[in-house]
Amino acid sequence: MQNYDDFMIKIPMIKVNTETSQIALSEDIIIKEDRVSLYLNGTKIISTMCILNDQDAHAVGFLMSEGVIENTEDISNIEVSKDGLSVFINAKINDANIENLFHEKTLTSGCCVGVSANFTGKIIQKFLSQKVQFSLKEIQEYIAKFQKDTELFYLTGCVHKAMLFCENQVFSSEDIGRHNALDKAIGKAKLARADTSKALLIVSGRLSMEMVIKCAMHDIPIVISNAATTALGIKSAQNLGITLVGFARNGYMNIYTHKGRILLPNDVKDDCEVLSSLES
Amino acid sequence: MQNYDDFMIKIPMIKVNTETSQIALSEDIIIKEDRVSLYLNGTKIISTMCILNDQDAHAVGFLMSEGVIENTEDISNIEVSKDGLSVFINAKINDANIENLFHEKTLTSGCCVGVSANFTGKIIQKFLSQKVQFSLKEIQEYIAKFQKDTELFYLTGCVHKAMLFCENQVFSSEDIGRHNALDKAIGKAKLARADTSKALLIVSGRLSMEMVIKCAMHDIPIVISNAATTALGIKSAQNLGITLVGFARNGYMNIYTHKGRILLPNDVKDDCEVLSSLES
Repeated sequence: MQNYDDFMIKIPMIKVNTETSQIALSEDIIIKEDRVSLYLNGTKIISTMCILNDQDAHAVGFLMSEGVIENTEDISNIEVSKDGLSVFINAKINDANIENLFHEKTLTSGCCVGVSANFTGKIIQKFLSQKVQFSLKEIQEYIAKFQKDTELFYLTGCVHKAMLFCENQVFSSEDIGRHNALDKAIGKAKLARADTSKALLIVSGRLSMEMVIKCAMHDIPIVISNAATTALGIKSAQNLGITLVGFARNGYMNIYTHKGRILLPNDVKDDCEVLSSLES
Repeated sequence: MQNYDDFMIKIPMIKVNTETSQIALSEDIIIKEDRVSLYLNGTKIISTMCILNDQDAHAVGFLMSEGVIENTEDISNIEVSKDGLSVFINAKINDANIENLFHEKTLTSGCCVGVSANFTGKIIQKFLSQKVQFSLKEIQEYIAKFQKDTELFYLTGCVHKAMLFCENQVFSSEDIGRHNALDKAIGKAKLARADTSKALLIVSGRLSMEMVIKCAMHDIPIVISNAATTALGIKSAQNLGITLVGFARNGYMNIYTHKGRILLPNDVKDDCEVLSSLES
């Protein structure tokens, strides 16, 4: 039996009924991702953002999928650290395949490489003083616009979408990968010299840390997804001063951080609670 | 207006009503992903699997998200090759950030690195002679088992799942990333010394090329997703001899390749049509 507390966290949030504009302070259960490091024969070879379950099987599956370990019998020892963040494997390995592992730099469709590396604290809290605001009605209109299926999604059911609402302009793009769709929409805005620091972004797909940091790189103050967010996504948004909204679908949306940029009809408790619960 | 033919393809498939067991030869529209290479100031720096739209914006958005290009004004030239597979950018760049780009090897939650590099044709057609078969009734039972929400999914709405049915054993795992969930389930099977060459795999999330190749690395003959597949996913499955099934949900499933391993009540046209349509 797994200990779910290891990879879930309960946090306060503001639930908005986007049809009636009613709001309520509520709670949400958020998935926690962590960076797990894999040491092979004493050398750290890779880190993966994942949830803290099945770490030993994950390491074995990954190394065998890559052909680095060819048979289960070649494994002499597997150990997971007490904090669950490191896996140590000793095994007979295929040297050629471990060299190939990072030889060809191809980002696959769900992939985001580099953002974490290039984010070294320099954008922390850059938005906290930013004063852009959107009314709930505006946001409802943007969500309705986002939710209209494109022909591409309708036909294939296999694309993510990102829509950037910059004052009177809309920059939209689709791709099989959510990171790609976001980069494409941002690139369109940049090529049009639009000011993304007053923009509202809506995306499909989960808001993990890398997605939030990507938005911070472009000063985007409000980020909304029709899907879930992760704990690190919320924590990054809290620290960076980004207003983060998740599960914007079926007539509701959940505001996780910095509600101040959304003009709500009534007052609700201060969102610093979100941060304190994440830090505890 | 985009030319949708550039990134969609129509292919024949077998549609199965999993409740009545009725089958029909039908068609599906599949998203086409391609490998787009990015050249910065004359040097190839990365390739990305994506769909062939907005390539210029994608390159600009990616490089600006990574801090490699800091201002749109720093771009002196952007050119997309006629075939759409290469983007050439000349720009003033931040040298430190381009060095960092691949310095820290962290796989983000949607990411799969290396599989393509370590797959150099060596597993082509390895399964074609493999004779494992499942009845439609067995498959329906497995899908029903897969579809039962776990507590983790129910609570967070933010995880992918992989379930490997190996004779009398089931190996299941979840993660925020579909590649991670698959590696975890495979790792569990490997640690239990289970024979994955007779297994049936069900996953959530799309079946892109990397997911199919990962299955081939472990001789998994039948792969089913409750979501979409991509064109390269289908082509890889066809070439590798894997039975690929998509959209297994709401009482239906679509068989794209190698139907021979699924015992169907009636005969349908030969699936080599799938391959020929993909090759055309």
